[in-house]
Amino acid sequence: MIFSTNSKVLEKVLSKVFPAVPARTPMPILENYLFQIEEGKLTITATDIEITLRSSIFIDSTENAEMVVPAKLLFDIVKSLGDTLINFEVDPVNSKMKLKTETGYYNIGYASAEEFPKIPDVNHDKKFGIAARQLKKSLDQTSFAVSKEAIRPAMMGLLIEFNMEGLRFVATDGHRLVRYSLLSEKSEIPEQYVVPERATSVLSKLLVEGNVEVALNDSTISFLLEDVELTSRLINQKYPDYSSVIPLENEFRLKVKKSELQSSIKRMLLFTTTNYQQVKLTLTTDQLEITAENIEHGSSAKEMVSCEYMGDAMSIGFNAGFLNDVLSHLDDTEAVFKLHSPTKACIIEPLTQKENEDLMMLLMPVRINN
Amino acid sequence: MIFSTNSKVLEKVLSKVFPAVPARTPMPILENYLFQIEEGKLTITATDIEITLRSSIFIDSTENAEMVVPAKLLFDIVKSLGDTLINFEVDPVNSKMKLKTETGYYNIGYASAEEFPKIPDVNHDKKFGIAARQLKKSLDQTSFAVSKEAIRPAMMGLLIEFNMEGLRFVATDGHRLVRYSLLSEKSEIPEQYVVPERATSVLSKLLVEGNVEVALNDSTISFLLEDVELTSRLINQKYPDYSSVIPLENEFRLKVKKSELQSSIKRMLLFTTTNYQQVKLTLTTDQLEITAENIEHGSSAKEMVSCEYMGDAMSIGFNAGFLNDVLSHLDDTEAVFKLHSPTKACIIEPLTQKENEDLMMLLMPVRINN
Repeated sequence: MIFSTNSKVLEKVLSKVFPAVPARTPMPILENYLFQIEEGKLTITATDIEITLRSSIFIDSTENAEMVVPAKLLFDIVKSLGDTLINFEVDPVNSKMKLKTETGYYNIGYASAEEFPKIPDVNHDKKFGIAARQLKKSLDQTSFAVSKEAIRPAMMGLLIEFNMEGLRFVATDGHRLVRYSLLSEKSEIPEQYVVPERATSVLSKLLVEGNVEVALNDSTISFLLEDVELTSRLINQKYPDYSSVIPLENEFRLKVKKSELQSSIKRMLLFTTTNYQQVKLTLTTDQLEITAENIEHGSSAKEMVSCEYMGDAMSIGFNAGFLNDVLSHLDDTEAVFKLHSPTKACIIEPLTQKENEDLMMLLMPVRINN
Repeated sequence: MIFSTNSKVLEKVLSKVFPAVPARTPMPILENYLFQIEEGKLTITATDIEITLRSSIFIDSTENAEMVVPAKLLFDIVKSLGDTLINFEVDPVNSKMKLKTETGYYNIGYASAEEFPKIPDVNHDKKFGIAARQLKKSLDQTSFAVSKEAIRPAMMGLLIEFNMEGLRFVATDGHRLVRYSLLSEKSEIPEQYVVPERATSVLSKLLVEGNVEVALNDSTISFLLEDVELTSRLINQKYPDYSSVIPLENEFRLKVKKSELQSSIKRMLLFTTTNYQQVKLTLTTDQLEITAENIEHGSSAKEMVSCEYMGDAMSIGFNAGFLNDVLSHLDDTEAVFKLHSPTKACIIEPLTQKENEDLMMLLMPVRINN
């Protein structure tokens, strides 16, 4: 059989689907693209079993066919070809796919589509639409705090929560927590879905413009973008009751310029030990002193950062790396810290919330070494 | 004692000297900068024993002093400070160096200058001047071909050769050879010096504009740039007689557009095995066919490249990676291959040499698998 397409059109669709190809896998078949040609449409699928990406283009073809082709090799070849027409000839006797251009002939082996894992079509119970940019922001704002530790599998995913207060995205690793809410998307029936971190990170890179249709059932979530569909298994574990750790009565308030505090914290990181990364914030009326010490190297640092503070004088310790992460994801020029004591969770928020949004970050303090 | 300087001025000089600090070393003292303060001048030195970098700035200081300070920590701190005045206070009782800025205090430990390896002042027998850009081009054009294998230590360096035909830079790893000559710099007395690859790669990054004074003796070479001096040990081994491998009677000529050939070779690399990277060039009158085959993956490729060829029809094999390297360093839009047979060294040159320059590259063919 024969089909043909422009190299740049093909490159674009291969690039959209490629992120699902696993870098290392015990199942070599997953290092391939599944090609499905039906009625002049080529559908390309890649999967690592957990997530699946799929996209289609129209091609000139004479027959229907299915096959699996080495993903990296094909993608590299097509990228290297420049802008040209590619004629594909499939030779089923030798299991070879031949690419012909004006100046070159390229043969690559292919395997039967039977060997590729079946990607079941899913019936979804729930659907909603969201702007790509809004979804991207929701993921980027929160997924940094997803746990990397397999002890509690639910925390290795991003919680998507529907309730009366809005559509919420929540991530926590036990040391910090981020809750980002879209206030306009309220739901009568509360529901929770936990999406694996790999799905959110692959999805975030694919999101640019337009609208996304999200479809859900108990075990699967699909994101239908304009030119590619991502499907992911959900994490089948109950998410911890995160709201119980959010303190309601943190009465002390520190207001500080985000960029000033963050550049100070970045310098302090040079003076912390790799394992603990401890910084100490000493608060007195309208005065913030930040200190760090690396006993191993005999180095230490102290800085004064201008601020507004209303509350009891106290010294509180944080992991400087975590604090830096939190500040990096704070979408405002000024940060507000809500505190109660050196041992109680600290809440960090933007001074002004964006319209229809609510961002709350929580950071657990660390015990200060004396 | 006390001294002060602007952070950006200090950052610049630290960055010039930092490349000599070894990334890994069994001698921790080498992970430091040597600071020498004398009469209002701060000289900063770093060395990995083989190469040494040294640069100076004028500072406000009250006393002379010497000490060694952790290179990476100090460089990172100074980079992170923004544009500010830094006041240094040295506390010899506790071996602490304190940096003070308007908002911060930073303490780092230092050690005695006695512990730092002595960098002897060198008397040089030979000196010459060269434009920085010209020297940079000479290094970049050739050093890619320096051998990485320790079997023949001389070939792990770049040969700088003075003779009647010019100032020559030569590198070879036994598979390929590059000879780049500056025809205007002729010398009556032939001399050879072999510079370690690390010196040439560090030097190349420092060369931007202005003039360089090069000083030589039997064991050492120094490059005095406008704001930094690099000194390197020479490789104390005789360089192989490279001219004996350059064929004089390669009578067949292939002329080809460099970019066309190179993009073809890059595609062919996708179809070669990692170990051998073999491509086959089949030459007939005015026709160049390039083929590659990866038996492991059952993939193969064939391309036609337009050319002018005068000579006997032949098929010749090359390492595609080496051929790509050679073409990357060919300073012309058209390449000329001078050939004799599939088993004899091939010469590759630009169609037109630049004024006062002569570039000759040589590539050994590989046996073609049939």
